[in-house]
Amino acid sequence: MAIAIIGGTGDQGLGLALRWIKAGEKIIIGSRQDEKAKAAVQEIKKILGECDVEGYENSIAAGKADIIILSVPFQYALPTMDSIKGALTEGKILVSQLVPLQATMGGKPTQVFMIWQGSVAELVSSVAPKGVKVVSAFQNVGAHLLQDVAHPVECDVVVSSNDEEARKTIIKLAEKIPGARGIDGGRLENARLIEPITALLIGMCIRYKKEGVGITFTHI
Amino acid sequence: MAIAIIGGTGDQGLGLALRWIKAGEKIIIGSRQDEKAKAAVQEIKKILGECDVEGYENSIAAGKADIIILSVPFQYALPTMDSIKGALTEGKILVSQLVPLQATMGGKPTQVFMIWQGSVAELVSSVAPKGVKVVSAFQNVGAHLLQDVAHPVECDVVVSSNDEEARKTIIKLAEKIPGARGIDGGRLENARLIEPITALLIGMCIRYKKEGVGITFTHI
Amino acid sequence: MAIAIIGGTGDQGLGLALRWIKAGEKIIIGSRQDEKAKAAVQEIKKILGECDVEGYENSIAAGKADIIILSVPFQYALPTMDSIKGALTEGKILVSQLVPLQATMGGKPTQVFMIWQGSVAELVSSVAPKGVKVVSAFQNVGAHLLQDVAHPVECDVVVSSNDEEARKTIIKLAEKIPGARGIDGGRLENARLIEPITALLIGMCIRYKKEGVGITFTHI
Amino acid sequence: MAIAIIGGTGDQGLGLALRWIKAGEKIIIGSRQDEKAKAAVQEIKKILGECDVEGYENSIAAGKADIIILSVPFQYALPTMDSIKGALTEGKILVSQLVPLQATMGGKPTQVFMIWQGSVAELVSSVAPKGVKVVSAFQNVGAHLLQDVAHPVECDVVVSSNDEEARKTIIKLAEKIPGARGIDGGRLENARLIEPITALLIGMCIRYKKEGVGITFTHI
Repeated sequence: MAIAIIGGTGDQGLGLALRWIKAGEKIIIGSRQDEKAKAAVQEIKKILGECDVEGYENSIAAGKADIIILSVPFQYALPTMDSIKGALTEGKILVSQLVPLQATMGGKPTQVFMIWQGSVAELVSSVAPKGVKVVSAFQNVGAHLLQDVAHPVECDVVVSSNDEEARKTIIKLAEKIPGARGIDGGRLENARLIEPITALLIGMCIRYKKEGVGITFTHI
Repeated sequence: MAIAIIGGTGDQGLGLALRWIKAGEKIIIGSRQDEKAKAAVQEIKKILGECDVEGYENSIAAGKADIIILSVPFQYALPTMDSIKGALTEGKILVSQLVPLQATMGGKPTQVFMIWQGSVAELVSSVAPKGVKVVSAFQNVGAHLLQDVAHPVECDVVVSSNDEEARKTIIKLAEKIPGARGIDGGRLENARLIEPITALLIGMCIRYKKEGVGITFTHI
Repeated sequence: MAIAIIGGTGDQGLGLALRWIKAGEKIIIGSRQDEKAKAAVQEIKKILGECDVEGYENSIAAGKADIIILSVPFQYALPTMDSIKGALTEGKILVSQLVPLQATMGGKPTQVFMIWQGSVAELVSSVAPKGVKVVSAFQNVGAHLLQDVAHPVECDVVVSSNDEEARKTIIKLAEKIPGARGIDGGRLENARLIEPITALLIGMCIRYKKEGVGITFTHI
Repeated sequence: MAIAIIGGTGDQGLGLALRWIKAGEKIIIGSRQDEKAKAAVQEIKKILGECDVEGYENSIAAGKADIIILSVPFQYALPTMDSIKGALTEGKILVSQLVPLQATMGGKPTQVFMIWQGSVAELVSSVAPKGVKVVSAFQNVGAHLLQDVAHPVECDVVVSSNDEEARKTIIKLAEKIPGARGIDGGRLENARLIEPITALLIGMCIRYKKEGVGITFTHI
């Protein structure tokens, strides 16, 4: 089961790639340009040594994978979906980890936009081809925590989807990251309760002068 | 420094009262009816034994306190503010722990309303008399966890306010609850990132069949 | 084809009743209490003389009608839906004219709440029995304009629904009100663009000291 | 009193320029590139003949004017504010005609984003230098109607601002457009009721196959 990370040259996408490659997953880095994807592959190999990772233009990367992680800045969500939709065939799992931070349009990283569809995950779902299983996850695990591969992330990952099986698959995938616990987040619409938490965590990073603040749930 | 809990006969308000009385704070229970407040006082004394707690009609309770905790159901926020505003004199601290759950109007406890002012705390602030220091806190600590006085709550309490001193005061007050950690939540507008988390926690209680789920922040 | 007006004793519901009875429609006034519905019927007969109108408790009124107009204050939307849902059989048309004004909870009539489902019409739709055709309409025609039966309302009525036939039926029904023009408002989700206009019109009433301000669309 | 139209090479900005030049106002076209502004000036002169209009890079255009119309696509609002803020000196009037259409990020023109600050006008206001008078206006007058200079626009222009004098100035400016009526829209926060109407009008254009649909208010 191959995992494509669309936008895998970004901080968050690269962090997920490092963690999952170390856990033995087959990772395909996607980028708008094939050569950027291949450069990211070289960077990863510098960090981890020789490993099972390839790089391609986004739509080719998506075509080679069973699980596709959408990891682009918020304002590119819909154009990116448009460019990869031919590769999103029935039964594939599409994971949104996007957060509508105002920073993506020159505003603050501690403020968000609100979305007509309720959340970016639901916006993405509204344009996904039929039969694709859309999942919301990984918004609240900061890039810094992911990339610091020497330490566990110590974060919960809330996983929401209307497809129960896809939810379980991604909960398991989350738990391959050391220090991450997958939490059943119920239906996809709950993404609107999860995405804004990232803005709260960024505010805490600023106020407490930390590079990564995470979230966990108690009494579960 | 006396603390009035407006709506102190409700589950959440009663839980806060129990915790703070045990910590040695002077508590005044407020209710729309004087006799209901006094009945709640008797109930508290049954649980804790003889202790320093009084009960009055809401506006009288607010008048006797330096810190006023607004702990009524969401749809009563503005009528309650109207009834107590005469007692909200300059320098007093007013704490909103309200969450705009759809359940308050016959909807689901896992869905929220969105507020013109951004959050219930900011709505309350928009009608608070000048000089009153409005603080947002205690939304994410469930009634069940608060009332279970034999165990620590194991929750973080995010405290937001435009008044830094009031924020510090309430952070200290939060930490008088065993197992609670006060977190600097920055400006009051951040309440809009904190209030909806309660709906997420209620959803987890339902999915995981738990009576109380809390939240803590890691790497702080 | 009988029309039940649930909440028909309120200003807006009564106004619609007067207009449609004058146009020859069969109207059934619904109220939480049978006797209040019957008192409203007497009031209507005082204004219009002997006419075809009956009054019943809400669920009975809904049972006797093919078109049901939901015309209760916003905070009673869900409890009312619960009380009438037994009468909402397949094929019936349910029209929401509700607006989530903050005034319904002690706030301003010029400010609104935002709804998890997007609009009150979509909230109502989320709990409507399967096969019921939910329509959004009549939010922007003020009670004063409706009740002033001597004059045309001079307002457009935007009608939204996912059921095209139901949309056409209610457009025709709107045009039985003198001075009203029915406008195709497309899918039900567009209600979220229409409901808040009422708060804008109320603000104009206040600023211009008018009892009713309406809206029309030009170049259509 | 000179008027700079920032983003004056776009459809909406160009339409406003044509209307106001015809009414005898001094117009300065702003664009990110000086040469594009100058090209737009040539285009205007082709349409209107020799007239009083100049073109400059945005910040220079803003520096030469007393009234600045912000007429850029939504996602450039904050970067543009950043580039012109040096020219926004005390007492100047800054008019936002922006609408947060989802189309600006690859979505539908009939759906909007919701803004943390409530509206784009309030977002702009949050970053405007102190003493600048921010006004919301002209969102609901379509580019097609503005550019069709042979015909009156037949639209109301709702003008909102916390500065009453600025509101009056822009109401007068609106009424220099034939067929436009300026409406007192009260405080700036009402922009959140006005901006989304544009998405509704675009939907009507689509459903009724019209190039421009406008809005007017009745009984005022």
